Amino acid sequence: MSLQSTQTDFVARVENRDAAGAILLVCEHASNAFPAPWGCLGLTDTQTRAHVAWDPGALDLSRALATRLDAALVHAPASRLIYDLNRGPDRADAMAARSEVHDIPGNKGLTAQDRLHRAEALYLPFHTGLHAEIVRRLALGQATVLVTVHSFTPVYHGQPRAVEFGVIHDADARLAWAIVAAAQAMTGLACALNEPYSAADGVTHTLRLQATPYGLANAMLEIRNDLIATPQQVEVMASQLAPVLQKALATMAEG
Amino acid sequence: MSLQSTQTDFVARVENRDAAGAILLVCEHASNAFPAPWGCLGLTDTQTRAHVAWDPGALDLSRALATRLDAALVHAPASRLIYDLNRGPDRADAMAARSEVHDIPGNKGLTAQDRLHRAEALYLPFHTGLHAEIVRRLALGQATVLVTVHSFTPVYHGQPRAVEFGVIHDADARLAWAIVAAAQAMTGLACALNEPYSAADGVTHTLRLQATPYGLANAMLEIRNDLIATPQQVEVMASQLAPVLQKALATMAEG
Repeated sequence: MSLQSTQTDFVARVENRDAAGAILLVCEHASNAFPAPWGCLGLTDTQTRAHVAWDPGALDLSRALATRLDAALVHAPASRLIYDLNRGPDRADAMAARSEVHDIPGNKGLTAQDRLHRAEALYLPFHTGLHAEIVRRLALGQATVLVTVHSFTPVYHGQPRAVEFGVIHDADARLAWAIVAAAQAMTGLACALNEPYSAADGVTHTLRLQATPYGLANAMLEIRNDLIATPQQVEVMASQLAPVLQKALATMAEG
Repeated sequence: MSLQSTQTDFVARVENRDAAGAILLVCEHASNAFPAPWGCLGLTDTQTRAHVAWDPGALDLSRALATRLDAALVHAPASRLIYDLNRGPDRADAMAARSEVHDIPGNKGLTAQDRLHRAEALYLPFHTGLHAEIVRRLALGQATVLVTVHSFTPVYHGQPRAVEFGVIHDADARLAWAIVAAAQAMTGLACALNEPYSAADGVTHTLRLQATPYGLANAMLEIRNDLIATPQQVEVMASQLAPVLQKALATMAEG
């Protein structure tokens, strides 16, 4: 596969580009596709369908939120196990050889050139595409707030997780605080700030790379994936979270 | 001119890509070219040669430093008056209608679409090209320190400037401090921190966009342009500043 075709194949997917809403949704772990030249990295079919390969439900929820919020959406074309787009190319876990309890055979013993090829084929086009959307909005004077959408497994390393909706912030915590306050006031969800991860775990790369340089308000949403496993559940969750995000934006505007 | 040809014409210029040194030099104001479709923006020939259009001497000094430091260099293909690559597309002074004492006729009354076209033709390709260099270095495990090289006019709004060498930092001041300390110890230059500008003036955009998200040490250099006006002066300045930068890197490595 030539570099040219790789770059065309793995660009960021953009939906609702001309939406009028201020929120720009990003779903870095949207896909469990394992395209050539990498293929399934030695994983079983069961593994390629499980949370280790992607964030199940996150793209469906992102699309339901995009509709309700009149929001643009940028999402990934391939599994995070080939390249985790929410990690810089200097990070070992951008191409993890082990994730939770899973060995990733195709990620063992990668050479510097293997890492470079994946970074140039997947990471660079995705973030260039997302950057292009932000640049376009800023040049046109459109209000822009960056919200990344993730899901997490209800059981991790054998431990059940009680939190249902986590909101994670990086350096600028304003939006995350406003979302948590709105979720606690408006929903029955078990909501927590910086759960099940926090910026200290290195999970806020997209926020740092794309939002912080422009001073854009930003936050990362984490939804427990057993709550968005069916189309009906996705609609229920979107109907709860869309008003929460709108309320949080209104709170920011007042502040 | 099609968007395709525009994007090809105005990519970042990269020299010494495979250099082994840790410093990645960036010169956003390297050029006083006024290419089509914008042309000279109604400026006189004298204005297009003056500091208002570019940073005279900055590219020559960058190249002399690149040779002495075995450093890669990324520089701009067009005048900052068409698009100032060290400003985000939300900033009015990315396409300034007035700069110091100069009106810029071709930048008056720009529409949102005009601003978008310039941002997509100039800003996005430049920063994508610079980002690609950083991504490549990080994926390959190469140490990387970002240093931007600028020049400033000895007289601004009629006031002479005494400072000869300014070092400007953004959030991470470590490298800037180390450079100032080395310059004061090793040269007779009138050196100052955060002169003649500082981050508060919005001049550290490239550092914020490209270095901070990856935690790369970074600094912006400002050299008074009457000190780098001839090839001989450029060599003298490079012979002073290259050891200063090497000493600063060594200080950082010790710390």
